[in-house]
Amino acid sequence: MNTEVCATFGIEFPLFAFSHCRDVVAAVTNAGGFGVLGAVAYTPDRLEEELRWIDDHVGGRPYGVDVLVPGKIDESAERAGRGEGGLDTMLAAIPQEHWDFLIGLFAKYDVPLPDFEKAKHSNARGGTSVTKEGATELIDVSLAHPIRLIASALGTPPPIMVEKAKAAGIPVAALVGTAEHARRQVAAGVDLVIAQGGEAGGHTGEISTMVLVPEVVDTVAPVPVLAAGGIATGRQMAAALALGASGVWCGSVWLTTEEAETAPAVKEKMLAATSRDTIRSRSRTGKPARQLRSAWTDEWEGPESPGPLGMPLQMIVAEGAMRQITKVAESGNPGARALANYFVGQCVGLMNTVKPARQVVYDMVEEFAGAVDRLNAITSAD
Amino acid sequence: MNTEVCATFGIEFPLFAFSHCRDVVAAVTNAGGFGVLGAVAYTPDRLEEELRWIDDHVGGRPYGVDVLVPGKIDESAERAGRGEGGLDTMLAAIPQEHWDFLIGLFAKYDVPLPDFEKAKHSNARGGTSVTKEGATELIDVSLAHPIRLIASALGTPPPIMVEKAKAAGIPVAALVGTAEHARRQVAAGVDLVIAQGGEAGGHTGEISTMVLVPEVVDTVAPVPVLAAGGIATGRQMAAALALGASGVWCGSVWLTTEEAETAPAVKEKMLAATSRDTIRSRSRTGKPARQLRSAWTDEWEGPESPGPLGMPLQMIVAEGAMRQITKVAESGNPGARALANYFVGQCVGLMNTVKPARQVVYDMVEEFAGAVDRLNAITSAD
Repeated sequence: MNTEVCATFGIEFPLFAFSHCRDVVAAVTNAGGFGVLGAVAYTPDRLEEELRWIDDHVGGRPYGVDVLVPGKIDESAERAGRGEGGLDTMLAAIPQEHWDFLIGLFAKYDVPLPDFEKAKHSNARGGTSVTKEGATELIDVSLAHPIRLIASALGTPPPIMVEKAKAAGIPVAALVGTAEHARRQVAAGVDLVIAQGGEAGGHTGEISTMVLVPEVVDTVAPVPVLAAGGIATGRQMAAALALGASGVWCGSVWLTTEEAETAPAVKEKMLAATSRDTIRSRSRTGKPARQLRSAWTDEWEGPESPGPLGMPLQMIVAEGAMRQITKVAESGNPGARALANYFVGQCVGLMNTVKPARQVVYDMVEEFAGAVDRLNAITSAD
Repeated sequence: MNTEVCATFGIEFPLFAFSHCRDVVAAVTNAGGFGVLGAVAYTPDRLEEELRWIDDHVGGRPYGVDVLVPGKIDESAERAGRGEGGLDTMLAAIPQEHWDFLIGLFAKYDVPLPDFEKAKHSNARGGTSVTKEGATELIDVSLAHPIRLIASALGTPPPIMVEKAKAAGIPVAALVGTAEHARRQVAAGVDLVIAQGGEAGGHTGEISTMVLVPEVVDTVAPVPVLAAGGIATGRQMAAALALGASGVWCGSVWLTTEEAETAPAVKEKMLAATSRDTIRSRSRTGKPARQLRSAWTDEWEGPESPGPLGMPLQMIVAEGAMRQITKVAESGNPGARALANYFVGQCVGLMNTVKPARQVVYDMVEEFAGAVDRLNAITSAD
C-alpha cells in the first residue's frame, strides 16, 4: 500500500499499533505495520529494558514510543515532578474520603484488601510519569534507541519533547480530539496528527471518528493524519482512508491478541462484550477515558462515590486497587470479576476471537482490499 | 452508482435525504437520490397537502415518508391517542412546575411570553402524532400516495405499520442504534435497516457510525443497510460504503440548503457551529436527541431545571416555547437568539455554506468518486 506515511516511515501498511505490550509492538512491526509502545506505565529503567528487547526482535524495522503528557494535571503532582516535597506532597493531596470509599468498595465486593500503604509510594511514583519531568525522562530513554516516532497521547507535547525529538531527527505525533487541538499541535511542531474519535478506548473527546477525521484532514493539510477510534477491521481501515486519513492508529484491537498481556478475566469480558459495553469515565485516571463498563465504573459514577479526583491523583487511587482486583479476579472471586475492567473502545464489539497480532494485520489488509473492490464495483457498474 | 438499494429503489445514487421540507425531498429525488419526508410534525390534512405537492414535483420519481413511532411513550399520551380522556388527559400529566420553569426562562432571557394556554391544545394534538393511533393516521395518508418507502424513526415499527405497508407492496425501513435493535427490526418485518450512529442529529444512541455500521451489516445480512450519523460529504459516503452499507441516509446536511425552512437565526448558528457545538439532550422531545447546544439545552440540564419530562409531554412543553423563541429571534432579540436551537448532528461542523439541495447531491457524488480514486491509488501503486 502506498500512502504518504508508508513512504515516510518505511512501512508496507499504514497501520499503527499502539500497545503497552512489547510483543504486540514487535509483531506488528515485523508484519509490515508500525508498532508503538505505550510507555506511561513504565519506570525509565523498565522502559529501557522493553526497548532493548524490541530492538533485539524487529531487525531494524521501524517502531515508535508513546508517552502521556497531559496539558493540565494536579498541582501537587507538578510540584512532586519538580522534586518539591517529593511523593508525599502528592499523596497528601488525596482526601481520606477517597481511600475510605475504596476500602468500602473492597468490602462490598468481598475482595481482600491490598496493602494500600505499601503500594501508595510505588503508585505515586507512577503518577509522576505524567508530569513534564517524568515524561522527559521517558523521552530521553526512548531517544537513545532507534525509534522512528515519538507520540504524545494527551495534550500538546511540551516544547522540550519537540526540541529533543527534532534534534534527534525523529518525527513527533500527537493525538487530538478536535480540529482546534490539531491546529495547535501543528503550530507546536507536530509532524503527524492522530485524529482520535470519541468511540476510541482510553482518553478521548466526544467528536466521532466519521466527523473528526475529515475536519482534521482539512484543517492541517498537508500534514498527514492517522485516523483512530473504533477501527478494528479492514473495512474500517478503508473507511478511514476514504475520509482522507493517510493511515490508521489502532489500540483496542490488540488487547485480545495472543500476545497481549491483558488479564485473562478482562480479556474474557472483552471477547464477550458488545459495542454498548463501554463507558467514558474519569474513574481510572482522573480524565475522561473510555473503558469497559463494570462495577468499578458504576460505583465511581454512583450516588455513594466521592467523585473521581484529577489526574494523576485518581491514577494513584485506582491503579493499586485495580492491580489487586485483577489479581484476585484470576482466582475466580466474583466481586473482583465484576469490578475488573480496562481501557477499550466501542470496537470491542467487533473483537470476538483471539488471534496472533500478525494475523490481525494480515486480516485487516485483506479485508481492506475487499472493501476497495466493493467500492470499485459500485462505481464502475451501470 | 450500483448498490442493491439503487436497483431496489430505482435511484442513481444511494443517497437518502431525510427532511421535514418538501422542497428538499423533491430536489434530492429529482437529482437522482431518494427524498424522505419527515411526517411527525404534520397533521394528517397537512401531510396530505405536502405529499400532493411532492407528487406534482417529482414526475413519478421515487420518494418516501418517515413517521416517528416510539416504543414507549407517556401513558397519558397513549390514553389520549386511544381517545380516552382526550388531550386534557395529556395536558394534565404535565406538572405545573414545568410551565413555571418555562415562564421563568422567558423572563430570564427577556423573551415575550407566548399564549401558552392557547397553544397547549394544538401542541397536545401534535403530541398524539407519536402515539400508535396518531402514527397510523399518518401512515394511511402516506400509503394513498405513490411512496416507495415508509420509515420508522424510533423503535420497532408496530405490526399495523408493517402489515399496511406490505399489503401496499411498500418496503419498510427503520432506524436503529444498536445491532440488537437491528435484529429485532428485521424480525418485525423491516426490509431496509438504517444504522444510525450516535453522532447523528435527532434521536440517537451512543454507538458511533464507524462501529455500528459493520456490526449491523454483519448482523442483518443479506438485508441491506443504510449508514446514518455524521455523513455530510462524499468522503463520508465512500467511508460508509466501505463499511459495508448499501447507501447513506443524511438528515443534517439539508438544514443549511437554500430550500430548507430552517429558521434564519438557527441556520446562521449552524453555519458557524463546529462539531463540538451539539449535545445529546432530552430537552426538546423527552428522549435523547442530538441538537445544537444553546441556552435552551444548558438551562434544561442546569441546576434550576425540573428535568425534562418523557415523550411526548416534553414535546408539548418545548415545541410551543421553541416556536415563540424562533419567531422572536428573527427580530434580533438576544435572549431568543441565545435560546434558539434545532436538531443537528456533529457534521454541522462540515456545513459551512448555503447550497441548493441538488448541488449537495452532486458535490457528494463527485467527492465520493474522488475518494474511490484515492483508495485505488493507495492499493495499486508500489
